[in-house]
Amino acid sequence: MTAELDEVVAANAELYAAFEEGDVDRMEAVWDDADDVVCVHPGWPMLRGRARVLRSWSVIMANTNYIQFFLTGVDAVIDADTAVVTCEENFLTAVADPDGALSESAKVVSTNVFRRRGDGWRLWLHHGSPVLAPSEEPSSD
Amino acid sequence: MTAELDEVVAANAELYAAFEEGDVDRMEAVWDDADDVVCVHPGWPMLRGRARVLRSWSVIMANTNYIQFFLTGVDAVIDADTAVVTCEENFLTAVADPDGALSESAKVVSTNVFRRRGDGWRLWLHHGSPVLAPSEEPSSD
Repeated sequence: MTAELDEVVAANAELYAAFEEGDVDRMEAVWDDADDVVCVHPGWPMLRGRARVLRSWSVIMANTNYIQFFLTGVDAVIDADTAVVTCEENFLTAVADPDGALSESAKVVSTNVFRRRGDGWRLWLHHGSPVLAPSEEPSSD
Repeated sequence: MTAELDEVVAANAELYAAFEEGDVDRMEAVWDDADDVVCVHPGWPMLRGRARVLRSWSVIMANTNYIQFFLTGVDAVIDADTAVVTCEENFLTAVADPDGALSESAKVVSTNVFRRRGDGWRLWLHHGSPVLAPSEEPSSD
């Protein structure tokens, strides 16, 4: 893997590290400053615009007691100043209930598109979606 | 909109036209010939590789009696030989049941990434996800 790809993979990991820490400042630094950023949380409609996207992350992080990611299948492709990263987000999260914290695990598949800026790769598009199907192959072939 | 963006938007529309027609040859022409293509159908895991991706489309189209798309919010951004298109897929589909065809409507949000090739823009990544949330804004802010 080239040094350039390493940088993109590190930028991708930083998205999940910011989420795990619930750190709004780090999350703001992950995202591009441009106002055409796009974000799809799993099962959500498409959110456009930096203010709206960052607000959604603040709400999600404020409502997440604990989350830990294990990324698998991370693949990065760079063309000029655009990088496309795909990965699987395997995560454990703590769900608060009247009897105490309950741990849940789930899987989301994600596409993350980064732009090269003067200070490094910044996230322009995040698209995460829930894996609802039971297997990797359609059953009818 | 520039002529170049028009071409990308047309390539994006062709994905949905091929699906509507259930035309395997058109669908094969939409996708890039490279073996690193990526596809996420709504609720599915991530499929990688041209053979696997095209097989999934063949199965889906064989099991779809009728589908019609109305794309909204189509936005395209080009950087060098990569184009990223985001859109909302509003669709009507006919679901066969014992009493005859039943019409259903639904919404999916999609990210489509194209590569510029000698013969035009070819689809490299499709990521569609179901909209399960009721509104565009989180309710807790």
